[in-house]
Parts: sequence; C-alpha cells; structure tokens
Amino acid sequence: MSGSIAVAGLGPGDAALMTPEVATALADATDVIGYIPYVARVAPRPGLTLHASDNRVELDRARHALQLAMAGRHVVVVSSGDPGVFAMAAAVFEAVEHGPPAWRDLDIRVLPGITAMLAAAARAGAPLGHDFCAINLSDNLKPQAVIDRRVRLAAEADFAIAFYNPRSRSRPDGFGRALEILRDVCADERPVLFARAVSTPEETLHVVRLPDARPEMADMRTMVIVGSSATRTIARSGAPFLYTPRSAA
Amino acid sequence: MSGSIAVAGLGPGDAALMTPEVATALADATDVIGYIPYVARVAPRPGLTLHASDNRVELDRARHALQLAMAGRHVVVVSSGDPGVFAMAAAVFEAVEHGPPAWRDLDIRVLPGITAMLAAAARAGAPLGHDFCAINLSDNLKPQAVIDRRVRLAAEADFAIAFYNPRSRSRPDGFGRALEILRDVCADERPVLFARAVSTPEETLHVVRLPDARPEMADMRTMVIVGSSATRTIARSGAPFLYTPRSAA
Repeated sequence: MSGSIAVAGLGPGDAALMTPEVATALADATDVIGYIPYVARVAPRPGLTLHASDNRVELDRARHALQLAMAGRHVVVVSSGDPGVFAMAAAVFEAVEHGPPAWRDLDIRVLPGITAMLAAAARAGAPLGHDFCAINLSDNLKPQAVIDRRVRLAAEADFAIAFYNPRSRSRPDGFGRALEILRDVCADERPVLFARAVSTPEETLHVVRLPDARPEMADMRTMVIVGSSATRTIARSGAPFLYTPRSAA
Repeated sequence: MSGSIAVAGLGPGDAALMTPEVATALADATDVIGYIPYVARVAPRPGLTLHASDNRVELDRARHALQLAMAGRHVVVVSSGDPGVFAMAAAVFEAVEHGPPAWRDLDIRVLPGITAMLAAAARAGAPLGHDFCAINLSDNLKPQAVIDRRVRLAAEADFAIAFYNPRSRSRPDGFGRALEILRDVCADERPVLFARAVSTPEETLHVVRLPDARPEMADMRTMVIVGSSATRTIARSGAPFLYTPRSAA
C-alpha cells in the first residue's frame, strides 16, 4: 500500500481561515505531525494518530513523516499559516533531497494556507498592495551580515517589508538591528504595523511611525509590516487604515 | 440601516482553496462587485445582485462598492487570490482616502485569500521557503526605471522573486527586461518556475534554468517564480521539486 504526505497550512489561527482542501486532508489522514501548538489545533478522532514535537526539530519531524508515508500511512504535516513560507515544506524537501532515493517518488503535496503577513495586512487595510518582501529574522543559521545587507537592499528597493519572527529566541536582537538599518536608509515617518496573534482571541494591532518603533513592541507571536515610502495612513475614529497604492513609484 | 464592505479573496481558482470566511461573506452579501471573470465564480441566487465590470476600472468599482454600502447594502468586492496583493483592497482604501469623510467610518473588512504565488509555490515544492519578494510587472503607472532598479536590488539581496502579471497588456516587454537584469546580476543556473492557471483545469507547470527563460514562456495567466541562489532542484521521475532551504545564506 502506498502512503502519502500532505504538508498543510492551518492558517493564522481562526478555523474560518483554513481552506477546505486542508480540512479534507485532515479528515483523510492517519497521522498528523507537527509542532505542539499546531497539532493541538487538530481535533482528535479514532483512527488518527497525533505526533506533536517540540520546536527546532524540523528535519527530524520531516524524516519521521517520510518514513511513515513509506510504510503506507497518510500523513499530514501541519504548519501555522502557509507551509511554504518559513515553515515545514522546505524541511520536508530538504529531507527528501538528502534521504533515500525512494522518498523522491512518494506522493508529496503542499497545501497552501493563509500566511501570517496576509492575515495581518488584511486586518490593517492593504499595506502589501504594492511590491513587497518577506524576511525571516529568526534563522540562527543565517549570518547576521546577510540579514543586514538584505534589509538594507530591501529598503533601498522601496519594498514594503514583512518581518516574520522578529523576536525569536535564537536571535532576539535581530529586529532592533533591522529597525536601525531601516531608519538609516528611510528618512521618513512611514507606518510600522505590529500585528500580534491575528485571528485569535489575543489579537492586537498597533501602528507607530518608523522613528518610534521599538524592538520590545514585538514578541514571538507578532508579525511586523513596515510600509514602503508610498504607504498611506487613513485616520478615522477607530484604528487607522494602512494601504500602499497600486501605482506607488 | 448601516451597510458593509468585505473585500474578499477567492483564491487562485479551485473552490477548495477559498476560505470558509469568504464563503460566509458571499452567502450573506446583497451585492457582489468585481472584474468579470471573478464575479463569474460566484453562484447567483435570489437576493444577490452581481455587478461585473471590465478590467482597469478598479477605482470606479471601489467607489461603486462604497456608495452601495453607504446605502445600507452588504457588499462583497471580489478579487482572485488575495485582495491585498496587487488587487482590489488597495483600490478600495484609495477611494476611501480621497472620498467623502463618512466613507472612513463604514464597516470595511479585508478577507484574505490564497494568493497566486503561494498556490504556485505549493505546486512546485517550496521555492518561497526562505526570504522572498513579490513584484508586479503590470503596472503601467510605475516608471520602468523604478521596476528595473527594484528587480536589480531584489536580485542583489538574493531574494527568491515572485513576478505577478509578467505579460500584461499594459507592459508586455517588462518581463523580458526583468529577465535580462536577472541574468546580468545572477551568473548562475537557478531554476525559474512558470506556473499557469494553478488549481484550474488548465494548470501547467514548467521549470527552466535562468539562462533558458524566455518572455514568451509566460502569458497573462502565468505566475513566475525565480529562485534565489540557494534554491534547489530535486530530480525525480515526475516534475522536479523546487525548494529553498530554510537556512539559505
């Protein structure tokens, strides 16, 4: 019997933001594998084995999923958000590349999800309405000089910038450095969105100007979106709307 | 009676990739507004008025939606993919900013969707598994020099790059220029994914090396993803997997 792997994105938190495709894959699975808080979002049922593991063991988790699929199981590897954005899909393919040749011919599918930056942007308006980039600040294997250079070039290119994992344990100071570089390149008061735990009961949104942004405004559940030079703020009675015009130069 | 606007993303095509949140908004709507092929994806029903309009009238369409909401209607403005990525959300907020003050206090929500680059990336593996950017090549109001500079800086920053609208009518030659710039900056054979009509019956995927990429490989329904210097290709019996390692320098 031939097994399968679906690497699935659960979306940012609210079940109403998980696609029907992912719901179907979970309903058909024999095994669900992932980081503890993401597996906790999957309802237990007879016939489904839940394998929850700690953070920072992504490659081990991927190999476990591939071994189960080789044994004929139907495995769903779960990530928050989208599995292809700073999440488990790259780990699964890294395991495939360096694993036994038979793993390459497994039925492996990636099921996309609503990634954090899209959920956060939607709550605030449309700050990613024009060209933008996504930078992961958590990766402790990436040299700091590479991150510094990338942030500087992204600002010079005038992208809106979505920062994932701004205050990870592995690199807690990276976000402060990124803010310094941005203030050095961008001599303006563009808005910065701190969106925490979007679509969950703990959701908070906070907008400040770049000169006022501080590292401690973010924690491990915060998505940060820095506008481009063209990003606009619309004042109103409630939280302001942010948007980047479609024709921004 | 107070109306509302939901700016909703229908996803790339397959109904299984549309979120339940968007399905609920469509079920509760009195009016659906959008570009003809997107409105055609919404099932007609009694009590729902469908307003389909041609391309390139985004601001008019946004104003129409705002006027209907002011009159107490429950309007869903539909985009393909995610409404906040090169789509209608920015147009709605642009109309709000420059419209009557009362529009600012309307109930306006953006409902995220699976944007084309996430769907395309998922089909190919995980090419956006590390830092990446998204560039819209269609905008005929953005000076060509700005696009050229942004593409060059994105390549220097070693982002994977997702190109939206590579062969738009308004700027059919932009993608050829972008490829020339990339070949100038990147002296390697990184993979380029051409993903057409992902999640529809017309879906095709095609992977070539950067030196072999040609503008005519893309049309108006194609999403192009150019790998970073670290993006890997895993050969197998079927289409190769592409992925960018999580720790790419």
